[in-house]
Amino acid sequence: MERGSKDLPKIVNLKEKFGRIQEYWKPKIVAELNESHVKLVKLKGEFVWHHHDLEDELFLVVDGDLRIEFPGGALRLRTGEIAVIPRGMEHRPVAKDEVHVLLLEPKTTVNTGQVRSDRTVDPEWI
Amino acid sequence: MERGSKDLPKIVNLKEKFGRIQEYWKPKIVAELNESHVKLVKLKGEFVWHHHDLEDELFLVVDGDLRIEFPGGALRLRTGEIAVIPRGMEHRPVAKDEVHVLLLEPKTTVNTGQVRSDRTVDPEWI
Repeated sequence: MERGSKDLPKIVNLKEKFGRIQEYWKPKIVAELNESHVKLVKLKGEFVWHHHDLEDELFLVVDGDLRIEFPGGALRLRTGEIAVIPRGMEHRPVAKDEVHVLLLEPKTTVNTGQVRSDRTVDPEWI
Repeated sequence: MERGSKDLPKIVNLKEKFGRIQEYWKPKIVAELNESHVKLVKLKGEFVWHHHDLEDELFLVVDGDLRIEFPGGALRLRTGEIAVIPRGMEHRPVAKDEVHVLLLEPKTTVNTGQVRSDRTVDPEWI
């Protein structure tokens, strides 16, 4: 079908999309707007310490209980809670049990921030 | 308290914030990132037809059942579903019953788009 003025925006069902994610710590893109991506990711375990030089990053916990550590303390985000990590702020997500998270961040954002490692991923659309 | 490097990001609890919103069609800002605002709004009834010339707009239905009408059709967004309305696309949200919606859009976005009316609001933080 050609993309025309009568095309309607797509509906993204979060539950259906999360059902298609198998691996932890691999964000998948589900929408784009204004040079940003909406990504979904399943987290379990500890991530790497990192920061994003130029990008603020929004975490919305869709299901679960997420700890985000900072040099000066930690946050605990539960289902239905949001936090914005400002650019430049060192952080490390830690999930004792599986957590489903919606991320909103500029398209330029790399999951491991300034740290390139085997945990760095190039996100795909789902 | 002074804002210092050890300040932690604030936690936004969606349920608690929606509990503080009394009026329909009056978006309230709960977070900012990368020149965008995250807003929460309660909808009930029909809004005005409008578009946003320069801003894509994300709708996430947190609770309820939202119809978004377009010249060429309509979408029905239920709890846990997202749609992005591209800039320039004429649309009109319609909520038969109360719907709780999270909006993500550039700070420059006006709720009624190109149409100024008594339904145009200057959103406040909650």
